[in-house]
Amino acid sequence: MRIGLLMMAVSMTMSGAMAQGAPAAETEFVNTLMPQPAELTVGSGRLAISQGLTVTWDKTHDDRLEAAATWALQRLRTQTGAPMQGQMAALAISVDGPGEAVQGIDEDESYTLTVTPQGAHLHAATDVGAMRGLETLVQLVQPDEQGWWLPAVSIQDSPRFRWRGLMIDCSRHFEPVGVIERTLDAMAAVKMNVFHWHLSDDQGFRMESKIFPRLTGEGSDGMYYTQEEAKEVVAYARGLGIRVVPEFDMPAHSTSWAVGYPELASAPGPFTVGHDFGVFDVTMDPTKKSTYEFLDKFIGEMAAIFPDAYMHIGGDENNGNEWKQNPQIQAFMHDHNLKDAAALQAYFNQKLLPILSKHGKKMIGWDEILTPDLPKDIMVQSWRGFDSLAAGAKQGYSGILSAGYYLDHMDSAAEHYRVDPVPAGSDLTPDQAKLILGGEACMWSEYIDPQTIDSRIWPRTAAIAERLWSPRSVTNVDDMYRRLWVESLRIEELGLTQISQEYASLRALAGTEQMDALRPLAAVLEPVDFDSRSEWSESHGITTLSPHDRLVDALPPDPPSRHDFADLVSTFLQDPASHPEQQAALMTMFRSWSEGEPELLQLMSGSPLLAEALERALQLNELGTMGTEAVGFLSSGVAAPPGWKAQKLAIVDAAAQPVALTRFTVLKPLRDLLNEVK
Amino acid sequence: MRIGLLMMAVSMTMSGAMAQGAPAAETEFVNTLMPQPAELTVGSGRLAISQGLTVTWDKTHDDRLEAAATWALQRLRTQTGAPMQGQMAALAISVDGPGEAVQGIDEDESYTLTVTPQGAHLHAATDVGAMRGLETLVQLVQPDEQGWWLPAVSIQDSPRFRWRGLMIDCSRHFEPVGVIERTLDAMAAVKMNVFHWHLSDDQGFRMESKIFPRLTGEGSDGMYYTQEEAKEVVAYARGLGIRVVPEFDMPAHSTSWAVGYPELASAPGPFTVGHDFGVFDVTMDPTKKSTYEFLDKFIGEMAAIFPDAYMHIGGDENNGNEWKQNPQIQAFMHDHNLKDAAALQAYFNQKLLPILSKHGKKMIGWDEILTPDLPKDIMVQSWRGFDSLAAGAKQGYSGILSAGYYLDHMDSAAEHYRVDPVPAGSDLTPDQAKLILGGEACMWSEYIDPQTIDSRIWPRTAAIAERLWSPRSVTNVDDMYRRLWVESLRIEELGLTQISQEYASLRALAGTEQMDALRPLAAVLEPVDFDSRSEWSESHGITTLSPHDRLVDALPPDPPSRHDFADLVSTFLQDPASHPEQQAALMTMFRSWSEGEPELLQLMSGSPLLAEALERALQLNELGTMGTEAVGFLSSGVAAPPGWKAQKLAIVDAAAQPVALTRFTVLKPLRDLLNEVK
Repeated sequence: MRIGLLMMAVSMTMSGAMAQGAPAAETEFVNTLMPQPAELTVGSGRLAISQGLTVTWDKTHDDRLEAAATWALQRLRTQTGAPMQGQMAALAISVDGPGEAVQGIDEDESYTLTVTPQGAHLHAATDVGAMRGLETLVQLVQPDEQGWWLPAVSIQDSPRFRWRGLMIDCSRHFEPVGVIERTLDAMAAVKMNVFHWHLSDDQGFRMESKIFPRLTGEGSDGMYYTQEEAKEVVAYARGLGIRVVPEFDMPAHSTSWAVGYPELASAPGPFTVGHDFGVFDVTMDPTKKSTYEFLDKFIGEMAAIFPDAYMHIGGDENNGNEWKQNPQIQAFMHDHNLKDAAALQAYFNQKLLPILSKHGKKMIGWDEILTPDLPKDIMVQSWRGFDSLAAGAKQGYSGILSAGYYLDHMDSAAEHYRVDPVPAGSDLTPDQAKLILGGEACMWSEYIDPQTIDSRIWPRTAAIAERLWSPRSVTNVDDMYRRLWVESLRIEELGLTQISQEYASLRALAGTEQMDALRPLAAVLEPVDFDSRSEWSESHGITTLSPHDRLVDALPPDPPSRHDFADLVSTFLQDPASHPEQQAALMTMFRSWSEGEPELLQLMSGSPLLAEALERALQLNELGTMGTEAVGFLSSGVAAPPGWKAQKLAIVDAAAQPVALTRFTVLKPLRDLLNEVK
Repeated sequence: MRIGLLMMAVSMTMSGAMAQGAPAAETEFVNTLMPQPAELTVGSGRLAISQGLTVTWDKTHDDRLEAAATWALQRLRTQTGAPMQGQMAALAISVDGPGEAVQGIDEDESYTLTVTPQGAHLHAATDVGAMRGLETLVQLVQPDEQGWWLPAVSIQDSPRFRWRGLMIDCSRHFEPVGVIERTLDAMAAVKMNVFHWHLSDDQGFRMESKIFPRLTGEGSDGMYYTQEEAKEVVAYARGLGIRVVPEFDMPAHSTSWAVGYPELASAPGPFTVGHDFGVFDVTMDPTKKSTYEFLDKFIGEMAAIFPDAYMHIGGDENNGNEWKQNPQIQAFMHDHNLKDAAALQAYFNQKLLPILSKHGKKMIGWDEILTPDLPKDIMVQSWRGFDSLAAGAKQGYSGILSAGYYLDHMDSAAEHYRVDPVPAGSDLTPDQAKLILGGEACMWSEYIDPQTIDSRIWPRTAAIAERLWSPRSVTNVDDMYRRLWVESLRIEELGLTQISQEYASLRALAGTEQMDALRPLAAVLEPVDFDSRSEWSESHGITTLSPHDRLVDALPPDPPSRHDFADLVSTFLQDPASHPEQQAALMTMFRSWSEGEPELLQLMSGSPLLAEALERALQLNELGTMGTEAVGFLSSGVAAPPGWKAQKLAIVDAAAQPVALTRFTVLKPLRDLLNEVK
């Protein structure tokens, strides 16, 4: 499979270069920028950097920018092996000022980058703009037989959206600071600018409070961030031009608060930290003064740690059960003319607002917080979708989109890429559209841990980052994937493990480094979607304590096979008789699926955790056989025997059923192939 | 290549099982224990653990042991995917007492482990002994079609040597705490018990002193361990039954001390931190009272952080240049009748001893510290070899061996494995032999960084760990390698990257995930030895600031190909006509070397850092071709044409020359093959 695809990768790269429109004789610049810049003009010639690159400054600059430039040069050096001695190329950096003391949504992130054979010049209004330009520079570097070089280009770039975020749920599974920091590195590489840190939920309170030590003391399993660590993360993010927006989910999703402080809840308790998943009943009591006194102190303490203008209060999935069962709360609702849980939650938010304001914070929360009485400077994060967001915008509320960007749903990068926070043809006025500030990818953590998180976030999030940065017109999915695989390698070089972990996990599962027999199968499998996994997990007693050690955990969502195979089949099907290259590639691949079966079965049957997916090996053999036959029929124009097609399509249908939480990536194109057989 | 070796791996595992001596019908227990225990008796039957394992305690036990047991169960759970619910097997742990408050060289590490179909029982005198037994338990787990199980065994185990260490030089290249901790995890997995932390050298002072802040403030590049971090490492190591012996190298290798405190040196200064390698001149001034006052305060401060009974004072490679050039020191030597630098260094050590004693520390240092006047409770670490160590033992000095265990020399695991701290047939009396306490693997850090360190230490260090733990009679190299590859996978599961990093680096070098074409070549290359790399590095201006981004840095030393290929060839050569399986494996391998050339050249020429090794691709093709021909001649008994053998041997000789700091692993067996051709 992988060997079969190698040729494709090479030819795709070449056609990518052609697609630049520049004559090949003049330049071989291969555009692998991700996200694509707003404007790029290819000039003529190149700037050789095999000796290295040195930075010159035409104005004063601060430590933050100097560190960012050093980091960019260090990566260039590692990539190129340049000695950084002798006749180095020069990069002149010119920045008007440092930008905001606390980065906000209006920070100017634009930059211009010009490369000529004489040198490179980066200009930006702020440090953050310059950082974005430095990432572009690192991605521009090209190798060939003559060494490393930068193409002559002129780039004017600025983001389409101001809020380009990633949320990580660190409650259901804790992620060490090192994981957070490497994730921030990758975010910066694709020009994202908001890290939304989901710090509390039913399954664990992850942020140290010195005023309320039982929040983590009893509301976590000992895994939480100290205040010092949180400050370190904030500083680390600032060094990358990334804001940190903390989330403390309230009034629901609050079991972990109530374990140590049961007086916050609307039921008597005692409470224990959740190990299961789903929506819990525990909800703060919005009728008690003491609740607000607690939150005032807590938010004040957190405000000193998190300088961002926004604090996320969650607000989602309040089932209202505890409120219904509490006569005192029911009486309160009656007295205050609050007709349902939504109204009481709106009351809670109203009380929360002055507390946030007092501590210099604006409110952001999920769709549920949006009620008519709230002031216009709150912000909504929409898990419901564009319509919900647009409804808010029409009332004057700003918002960001997360529906369509849920990484735990195991959708493809292409699916995420097609989701636009302001789709063409929306009925919003330009002023309303401006209220949609961007979006956030969401990494909920029911089924991830520090080993698997990278492959769940990356590289798919790079496609979302491009959607949020690049012009709306950048929509070519083929070109996105071509660049996505390059970006994924760059992200691994930053120290992430989304590629390596697959192989490491397969070796661990196989119990040997010699697991090549497993690769053709693993390459065409991916995890089932979130709902399927949830359903299975509930019926198998899976909790936060269960290991992520199955084949499904090794497999990355949306592996290269999904798009590459579809592309290969559709090209072949344009005219099967006249595509010998695609025909050969398909035959090689199908043969590897069939012929590998004996070795594969031997490997899988010796490993109990692989054995549960044994059926997949048998199916792969069948799919390979029918593929070989189908290509044979199509190439020769010979018709299949009666009943052949129906029989094979039935096998494909059977293979579409989940086995060991995995699904095939290749079934739809395979069906297309079968359907074309006469 | 790898595919060809797969069959071997399978058959080796089977013959390994046979080698246990137990009839295959009764049990299929595959012994992958590393290190091998002192005594192991295989019983009959098995203990199924597919549901999980639960621990029972028959006595009180402390938090440390409970954490160790939890950690062992967690690893078992991840490995097996056991639900840890329902009918779990039971492990009864029985420990007489916690052991020493500060683990010393006399800590009792013995344990007995008994597994029957009814349950497992672990008994030890101390927590540390029980930890060693838990590691054995984790390694005993077996998979088959029926799930996971422990074989019925009875193990009585204790270490042959009391000091089984690993030294890491954190001065020349700094290693973050996370790297140190994962290394400690791996050390514990193979029952090592001393982490020797080389914290200062010419290239950087890595330990925070609050009394002398300029040690790191000016003597490092900002990368150093805070006192809090060092205490964390000490506590982490104690949790694994590992002692931490800090080293502060003196009087030489002391440039980094003198940068902030030039008054310590024997020349006027000023000094700067070294970026080059080799032996520097900067040496402390042993004639000044102020030197000892400084060291008294410093050692007192460090003694509060490092509780171990020993403190390592280095003492190596003092070239005496500064002393020779300082008239005041020369006069001092004359006045005190100190005839040379060695005598002055002995004087320095004599003055250092009471300072160490005052702070509760015993002295350990390299061979050079051993001078007749020192008391018998100092200890020598020998980089010179067994003879030096034996000479010390005959005078009553205890010592540990490091000659033969230098990981930066890029020797094979087999070479390290054959080095015995007390070889059979030595002329030491039993009492003298007892003074040789063990040994230490040494990871000097000229050419490593946090990304590459794992593959330089592991898995080879596991072979050294076995040499130091297991009975002297455990010397079968084939069996060691069979278990080493399994242990390497287990170590990766702890979070180390010695296998993954090779692939990740190859992908980065190739600039694509599709780098299969590179694998047959990479599999038969390894880094050149230390001297060759040093020579090249000096002539190419390599410093501590240079990246480790070349093919040589991706390649692990002593890859499986070295031993596997030699084994395959020697089996084949026993009688070429009657080994069709080996013949086929050789032919497959040789063909992959030759046939892969076009794709390989395409891949390498597009990457400047791979292109420097292009000659290796051409050579691999030639080696494959001659191998195919040789196997043909040998299998058929046909003689080669005149001149054929000489021509091919000349090509092998040419291939033995270093290219891009790499060398082939397969040349000696290939020569053997050629030499057998008529």
